[in-house]
Amino acid sequence: MSEPLKLGIAGLGTVGTGVLQLIDANREVFERRCDRRVEVTAVSARSRNRDRGVDLDGYQWFDDCVDLARSADIDVFVELIGGEDGAAMASVEAALNAGRHVVTANKAMLAFHGTALAKLAEQNGVGLGFEAAVAGGIPIVKTMRESLAGNRTDKVFGILNGTCNYILTNMEREGRDFADVLADAQRLGYAEADPTFDIGGFDTAHKLAILTSLAFGTEIDFSSVYVEGIERITSQDIQIAGELGYKIKLLGVALETETGIEQRVHPTLVSAQSIIAQVDGAFNAIAVNGDFLGPLMLEGQGAGAGPTASSVVADIADIARGHIGAPLGCPCDQLRPYKRARMRAHRGGYYVALAVRDRPGAFAAIAQRMAEQNISLKSIVQRGSEIDVDINGQGKGETQETRAVVLITHDTLEKSMRDALSDIEADGDITEAPRMIRIEQL
Amino acid sequence: MSEPLKLGIAGLGTVGTGVLQLIDANREVFERRCDRRVEVTAVSARSRNRDRGVDLDGYQWFDDCVDLARSADIDVFVELIGGEDGAAMASVEAALNAGRHVVTANKAMLAFHGTALAKLAEQNGVGLGFEAAVAGGIPIVKTMRESLAGNRTDKVFGILNGTCNYILTNMEREGRDFADVLADAQRLGYAEADPTFDIGGFDTAHKLAILTSLAFGTEIDFSSVYVEGIERITSQDIQIAGELGYKIKLLGVALETETGIEQRVHPTLVSAQSIIAQVDGAFNAIAVNGDFLGPLMLEGQGAGAGPTASSVVADIADIARGHIGAPLGCPCDQLRPYKRARMRAHRGGYYVALAVRDRPGAFAAIAQRMAEQNISLKSIVQRGSEIDVDINGQGKGETQETRAVVLITHDTLEKSMRDALSDIEADGDITEAPRMIRIEQL
Repeated sequence: MSEPLKLGIAGLGTVGTGVLQLIDANREVFERRCDRRVEVTAVSARSRNRDRGVDLDGYQWFDDCVDLARSADIDVFVELIGGEDGAAMASVEAALNAGRHVVTANKAMLAFHGTALAKLAEQNGVGLGFEAAVAGGIPIVKTMRESLAGNRTDKVFGILNGTCNYILTNMEREGRDFADVLADAQRLGYAEADPTFDIGGFDTAHKLAILTSLAFGTEIDFSSVYVEGIERITSQDIQIAGELGYKIKLLGVALETETGIEQRVHPTLVSAQSIIAQVDGAFNAIAVNGDFLGPLMLEGQGAGAGPTASSVVADIADIARGHIGAPLGCPCDQLRPYKRARMRAHRGGYYVALAVRDRPGAFAAIAQRMAEQNISLKSIVQRGSEIDVDINGQGKGETQETRAVVLITHDTLEKSMRDALSDIEADGDITEAPRMIRIEQL
Repeated sequence: MSEPLKLGIAGLGTVGTGVLQLIDANREVFERRCDRRVEVTAVSARSRNRDRGVDLDGYQWFDDCVDLARSADIDVFVELIGGEDGAAMASVEAALNAGRHVVTANKAMLAFHGTALAKLAEQNGVGLGFEAAVAGGIPIVKTMRESLAGNRTDKVFGILNGTCNYILTNMEREGRDFADVLADAQRLGYAEADPTFDIGGFDTAHKLAILTSLAFGTEIDFSSVYVEGIERITSQDIQIAGELGYKIKLLGVALETETGIEQRVHPTLVSAQSIIAQVDGAFNAIAVNGDFLGPLMLEGQGAGAGPTASSVVADIADIARGHIGAPLGCPCDQLRPYKRARMRAHRGGYYVALAVRDRPGAFAAIAQRMAEQNISLKSIVQRGSEIDVDINGQGKGETQETRAVVLITHDTLEKSMRDALSDIEADGDITEAPRMIRIEQL
């Protein structure tokens, strides 16, 4: 065996502790596979004395993660601090500039600065591994960067946030409302005290921006991701979608179109028969199409100490073996600029939920507005007034006067859909703002 | 960019032609990702003049694939000839000994000679890529060899043969018999004229033997794989299994037990709720558990020119990038010898189909034989005599005197199960040989 590979780990939260535990527990098999000794030589974290259930005595301690990043005693800087800027970004830049390989689980940092960091890694001739940044334990980064090397890709999509999938799955199984299931998820530790980042779709968007770059060979462009969360999905939506043969999932979708690349995160109706519809609970899944490969799907645990540590350590193994590739799959100077396709140009089917006034001609007027935009309807579901009050989960007002109507459209332009809904709202035949959920053909 | 990587391709059937087409169609994106030019310089096949839809004029032609393997004009020998010995084995050995990297899709050759070839590759300091040998386009070899580097694995299993899965799926969907669906599959090109290799489970066994080595760090031992095909599965089995909440799939399973490693290929009852039960038609899927990673599943196309070419070319990309690792995930001198767990020591649930004589005491005697072996029953399904004739799909004899009985057992020892069935057969209360199908908890 050659010289041991020396690791410096910054950030000793759940994942950092998980990495220490993994290396301790599986050192023998890990080193056999790396054909090299692997040693954690130094660590850094905010507090030295917090009880993490691991003994830090054998490691050199750094109060400042930037000092650790530059330390001559490490070959690889493992950044598990988190946050798009601040200490994480400063220490990763310092490590790359000092010629240290970097392994990180930091999706926010990569969504904002991924292309710049990849360039810096290439300039310094070192590796930048981030398998753990997308979908936890699922090896989607390696798959896209290496296994799809010979393929053109037209689409990648996935369930990239376990919290949202857990909430949607439980809303479906138990027929319960969003707020109720969210509260449960928070109690059980599946959702944060401030859940906005997850349920608002932003976490999914970070991961999607990285996947888009790997899929299409473009620079990472997080600012172009269209983001919509699951906060407004009702148990009635899930029930009606189910009756029509769909499930509702929060998907991140990146798609090459004639006008550019769509990157979008939103609740989505998917066929209940599709394999991604079977991905339940806190699991993640990513599907990608290659022109020669055809469809490929990977499913596994998208978060948690163990799965995330597994991916961190897989990146370390690549470095130990000397397998240093271009971080984004092709050299940065050959990345295409990202060209954004506007959401208004998106084509697809829509689920539209309307609270329609129960008066003569109301529905005819709505149908007329759809027809004016050349939107053709595939299904219409009308609920009796006894459950109307639930249409937006608000349980109040005008029970006797409105009917919950759900329309499923054939493929249409998003601009047409928005214009039709805007006209319908202006007509005054509905009592609440219309809601639409996109349908994805998989 | 550095020097171009020069490829010699031996075997120009569906896959070989697919590789030429892929490189031609996607050269620009492929070379960008490899950061290197990649050229096919020479080819070899049985017939030079067969119309393959690709122009061979630009390539040096070799009548003898061994000469191609040794040619100084190639860096990588791509073996797509097939067959466990003969020209494939001779040329691969020649290539490795001549210091050429090898990429192959030949599962039979690897099942029989994989460990020896891996050693030879290591001795000569070259790569041996075989992503295409297991599950076509699905990147399971890379995933197990690299992404799971930090994990201990206790189990890997999968649907590894598209022909069998296509037949079982269509038997289930259409309620048709095995022979009938097989004939259709042959007509449509999903099954070979002589389908024994696929439906008998041998193709699955080849792939499983390779996966076992990657999962457990053992030498490849194909001879220890227990193999049972799908020929005796009836549409009634599928129907009754469905009523009890199961689907029937041909699985390859490798499992570390207290007594050694089980490698087994057999029709299997899996929960209809499990994600692998949703893998239908010609698709393949592999699931693996890592102690830190948790469960991971990959699904995609397991055969065909495009998916297989995609995997061949992914291996070529690794070589182009200089990422040459130990072929079996750890150096051969550190592989453990394979220790076989006997099938008689297997523990699991069983589906047992019996044609029971319709006479007093017959079922009591059967139940008694089960009890004597400490086998406890979970479900009992009895069919009226009008469908008894179908129990083995033979449609003859004693319709009025037998009843089709299906038992589902709790977990038990395979030896106990076999002993009980042998006693039941000797008692004379059944009119046909009993059949059992193993149940897998996923």
